[in-house]
Amino acid sequence: MGRRSVWAWGYEDELPSGPELDELAARVEPLIGARPSARHPSPPRVPQPRCPVPGALADFATQDERERAMHTYGKAWPDLVRAFAGDFSPAPDFVLLPRTEADVALALSTCADERVAVIPFGGGTSVVGGVEAAGLGDFSGVASLDLRRMDRLLEVDEVSMVAHVQAGATGPRLEEQLHKHGLTLRHFPQSFEFSTVGGWIATRAGGHFATLYTHIDDLVHAVRMVTPTGPWQTPQVPSYGGGPSPTGLVLGSEGTLGVITEAHLRVQPRPTFRAASDVRFARFADAVAACRAVAQARLYPANCRLLDAGEALLNRVADDGSCVLLLAFESADHPVDAPLARALELCSAHSGDAREPRRPETGPEDAAAWRASFLRAPYLQSALLTLGVMADTFETCCRWSAFDRLYERVSTEVGQALKEACGGGALTCRLTHVYPDGPAPYFTFVAPTRPGEELERWSIVKSAAAEALVAEGAAITHHHAVGRTHRPYFARQTSPTFLAALRGAKQAVDPTGILNPGALIPPP
Amino acid sequence: MGRRSVWAWGYEDELPSGPELDELAARVEPLIGARPSARHPSPPRVPQPRCPVPGALADFATQDERERAMHTYGKAWPDLVRAFAGDFSPAPDFVLLPRTEADVALALSTCADERVAVIPFGGGTSVVGGVEAAGLGDFSGVASLDLRRMDRLLEVDEVSMVAHVQAGATGPRLEEQLHKHGLTLRHFPQSFEFSTVGGWIATRAGGHFATLYTHIDDLVHAVRMVTPTGPWQTPQVPSYGGGPSPTGLVLGSEGTLGVITEAHLRVQPRPTFRAASDVRFARFADAVAACRAVAQARLYPANCRLLDAGEALLNRVADDGSCVLLLAFESADHPVDAPLARALELCSAHSGDAREPRRPETGPEDAAAWRASFLRAPYLQSALLTLGVMADTFETCCRWSAFDRLYERVSTEVGQALKEACGGGALTCRLTHVYPDGPAPYFTFVAPTRPGEELERWSIVKSAAAEALVAEGAAITHHHAVGRTHRPYFARQTSPTFLAALRGAKQAVDPTGILNPGALIPPP
Repeated sequence: MGRRSVWAWGYEDELPSGPELDELAARVEPLIGARPSARHPSPPRVPQPRCPVPGALADFATQDERERAMHTYGKAWPDLVRAFAGDFSPAPDFVLLPRTEADVALALSTCADERVAVIPFGGGTSVVGGVEAAGLGDFSGVASLDLRRMDRLLEVDEVSMVAHVQAGATGPRLEEQLHKHGLTLRHFPQSFEFSTVGGWIATRAGGHFATLYTHIDDLVHAVRMVTPTGPWQTPQVPSYGGGPSPTGLVLGSEGTLGVITEAHLRVQPRPTFRAASDVRFARFADAVAACRAVAQARLYPANCRLLDAGEALLNRVADDGSCVLLLAFESADHPVDAPLARALELCSAHSGDAREPRRPETGPEDAAAWRASFLRAPYLQSALLTLGVMADTFETCCRWSAFDRLYERVSTEVGQALKEACGGGALTCRLTHVYPDGPAPYFTFVAPTRPGEELERWSIVKSAAAEALVAEGAAITHHHAVGRTHRPYFARQTSPTFLAALRGAKQAVDPTGILNPGALIPPP
Repeated sequence: MGRRSVWAWGYEDELPSGPELDELAARVEPLIGARPSARHPSPPRVPQPRCPVPGALADFATQDERERAMHTYGKAWPDLVRAFAGDFSPAPDFVLLPRTEADVALALSTCADERVAVIPFGGGTSVVGGVEAAGLGDFSGVASLDLRRMDRLLEVDEVSMVAHVQAGATGPRLEEQLHKHGLTLRHFPQSFEFSTVGGWIATRAGGHFATLYTHIDDLVHAVRMVTPTGPWQTPQVPSYGGGPSPTGLVLGSEGTLGVITEAHLRVQPRPTFRAASDVRFARFADAVAACRAVAQARLYPANCRLLDAGEALLNRVADDGSCVLLLAFESADHPVDAPLARALELCSAHSGDAREPRRPETGPEDAAAWRASFLRAPYLQSALLTLGVMADTFETCCRWSAFDRLYERVSTEVGQALKEACGGGALTCRLTHVYPDGPAPYFTFVAPTRPGEELERWSIVKSAAAEALVAEGAAITHHHAVGRTHRPYFARQTSPTFLAALRGAKQAVDPTGILNPGALIPPP
C-alpha cells in the first residue's frame, strides 16, 4: 500500500489503471457514445496559510502543503472534481496531529482563544462536505484536527465483550488489533479502509449488518468526547436509564459539539456459522414485499441486500432483468440454516426463486471477494471521473408503506434531472438495511459529464434527488450524515424546536462556536 | 374495577384484604417476630390552593380536592407512606386535563406567563419522585398536567407495523385498541395497568422483553412533544441518519423539556410460537455465567429472568435454595424450539438443570397468571405497608465483568443498612434484562418498620443501595428513571459537560423553566 491520493479515493497505486481502466472505459462506452480516454489530474494549487500555527500547538501541528491539501476535502463527488482540477482553495491553514487527549484539549482551548475554527478529521471520507472549511467567517484561520495518531486498542474486557479504543483507529487498524483477541467489531462501512471509529460515531455510520446492528450506534457501549469546556464521558454500562442518553447526543454530532477521542465498543467472536442464498425475483415489488416479510418476521439476517434489476446488472449478479436479494445469516454460536430456510419460504411466497446456497461474501474471511465487490466501488467512482463519467450515490430511509411512491418519484424525477443535466444516464436502487418498519434504499446514478461541467451537472441531479426525498418525507440520509451538503434539507426535515435545543447544547459546550462551523447545524 | 386508591397502588377494591391479607400477614410473621394486624390510612389532608386556575385554562382545569390529592405523588415507598399518613402537603394547586394538543400548548404558554410550574402526569406511577412538586421556589403555583383524556389510537399503518397513538393511553387502553387490528406493542412494565405511553417515553420505561426490545426506546418510531416554545416532532422514518437523534433527547427527558402528546410505535402481530423452560442452578455464579452465555450467543430470548435463591423462594418458584432462570422464546412467525434448545445447552454447560418445558406466563394470553405473578407485586407493597413491613426495589445495570463485585457489595452494604435501620430484613436479586455486555440486576428488600419510622428507615437503606451502585460504577437506574430521588446520584454519574449541554437544550425550549422543576436536571 502506497500513499493516499490527494484527489481520488484511497491509495494512489490502487486506482484503476491499465487493463482495468480500459475495461471500465469499454463498459461506459454505451453511456458516453464513444470510448473515453482517461484525463489526468492537475497539480494541486494550495493557497498560502492565512495564519501561523499558534505557538502552544507547534509540537503537533504542520503547515506542510501536502498535509493541508489532504485535509481540504472529503470524498464526495464535488470534492473529487475540485481536487482533480487542482483547486484546493478551502485548504485549512494548518493541520493538528494530537497524540493524546491533553493535546486535543490544548488544541481546543488555544483555538478558542485565537478564534481559529477546528474541523475534526478522521479518515476524511465524508461524502457530505463534513470536513471542509466553508469559509473564514469571523475566524482568523481554520485548523484540521486529525486523530490518526490516536489509533490504539487500549483494553479488552473479554468477559463483557467490550473493547476500549482510541477514536483515530481506522477499520483495518481496529480489526487487526481485535484479531489478536479473537474478536471483531464487524462494522464494515464502504469507507472501512480509511474511516475511523471517531468518524463512524460522529456521523452515525452504517455498517455491515442489514438488521439489528445497522449503525455504529448499536455497537457503542460508551464514548468519550473532548469539548472546549471539558470532557464528555458517557456511562460505561450496557444501558443507562437516567435522563436522555449522553451517547445519543454524541452520535451524529459531526464534530460540532466536540472531538471524539475514545470509545468502548461492543465486540464479538468472529462468526463460525453461516448460511446464505441469492433469491431472484422477476418483479421488484415482489422482492420488496419479501424483504418486508423477512424483516417483520424478525429473522435478523446479517445481510438482506436487495438489488433492483439495474443494480443486479451493474454488479454482474444477474443479466436477465431479475432483481436479486442477497440473504445471509451468521453466528458465532449456533447454526443458522433454520432462519435462512424460513426466509427463503417467505421469499417463495412472494414469487422469489432461490438459487443454490452460496457462501456469503460479507466477512473478512472472504476479503478478496468482498473488497472486489464492495470496497472497490469508491475507486471506480474516481476512475470514472477521469473518463468523463459522473457516478454518485444517495441513500434514505422510509416506511414500507411509503416505499413504492418514493421509488417511483425518485426514479421519475432523478431520471428527468439526468436527462436535463447530462442527456441521459442510469439510476439503480438497492436496499441496504431493513427494519420492521421500513427499508433503507440506496440509489446509484451514472451519467456522462464533461470537464468543467461536473459540478453543475451533479448539482442538478443531487438537488432533484434531495427534493424528491424531502417531498416524500423520506430521510435526507440514513447513514451518510448531514455535513454541509445535506444541511438545507436536514433543516427542512427537522423540528425547529429540536434545532433550537441542539444550538442550546452547542452554545453550552462550545461557546465560541469554533467546532466545525457550517456543518450539520443550520443557522437560526 | 373501582376507583384508584388515593394512597396505595392501583384500584381500591383490588388492594389485598380478607384472607389474602391474612395470608400475607402470616408470611411476614417471621420477619416481624409477631403476626401483624393491618393499620388503616388517615384521611387525606390537602392544603388550600395557593393560586387560582388561570382563566384561560378554566375549561380543562380542576381544583377538586381528590384530583389534587391523586396528583400529589407517584408510587414510591415515601409516597405511599406520606399518603397513608394523610400528608398531601405537596399537592399541586390545580390539575389540568387537556383534551387536545392545543390545550397542552395553551397550558404551557399560560403557565409560563403566570409563572406556574407544570408537572406532566401520565399514570402517576413514578417510583423516583418524578411527578411531585418539590416546593414553590420562584413560582406562584404548581399545575399537574394529566394526559388521560388523550388516549386514542389515531391510526395504524399495518404495512409498516406502526401505530400512531396519543400519549395518555395506558397499557390496557393501548392494547385494547391495538387488539382490534390483531396487533400488540408487547411492552409490559410492572406499572402496565396505569402507566402511559407518554410516561414510558419520558422515563425510558423497561418492558417485557429481556433482550433487544428492553426499553420503550426500542419501540418508538417517532414521537411528538409540545414545549413552551413549540412542537417537537421527530422524523417518521425507521432510522434517520442526520444529526443526533431528536427522539433520543425526548426519551428520558422526564417532562423537563416538554409534554409528550403523541407517538408512533412499532407494533407487531401477537406471538403464536412459544417455547419456555425453567432452569435450576445450585450456585448463583453459575446461573449468572449461563445468562451471560445466552446473551452473548445472541439467541434473543423474550424472557431471561434469573431469580437468586431468595427471590425464587419469595416467588415460590423454588424452595430448596436453588436459583432459577426463567427462559422463554416467542415469535409470531416461526417455531422457537431451536433457540431454546441451544440456550438450555448453554445452561447445562454451566451446571444448570432444565426441568420440563413450561408455558411462559409473560403474555396477555396468560393474563390471570401473569397478573398474579407480576402486576400484583405493587399491590403487595402497599398491603405490606399497612402491616408494618417495608418493601421496595432498586435496579441497575453493569458490565458482566463488574457483576460479582457489585452483587457482593450491594448484598453486604444493603444488608448492613437493613440491620442498622430495621434490625434485619431480606434482600433478594434477579436479573430482568440481559445484554451482550452486561445484565440489569433488580433488587428487592423487605424489612420490618414502625409507624412514624418508615421514611427514616427507608432513607438509610435506599441511600446505602444508591451509594453501593455509585461506588461500583453501576447505573443508578436501568429503567426506573431519575426523578427527584435519584437526582443527586445521577449528577455524580453524569459528565458535567453533558449536563451543561442538557441545561442549554432546556433553556432553549423552556426558557422560563416551568417544566417539572427539580426533576432530573441537577442545578449547575
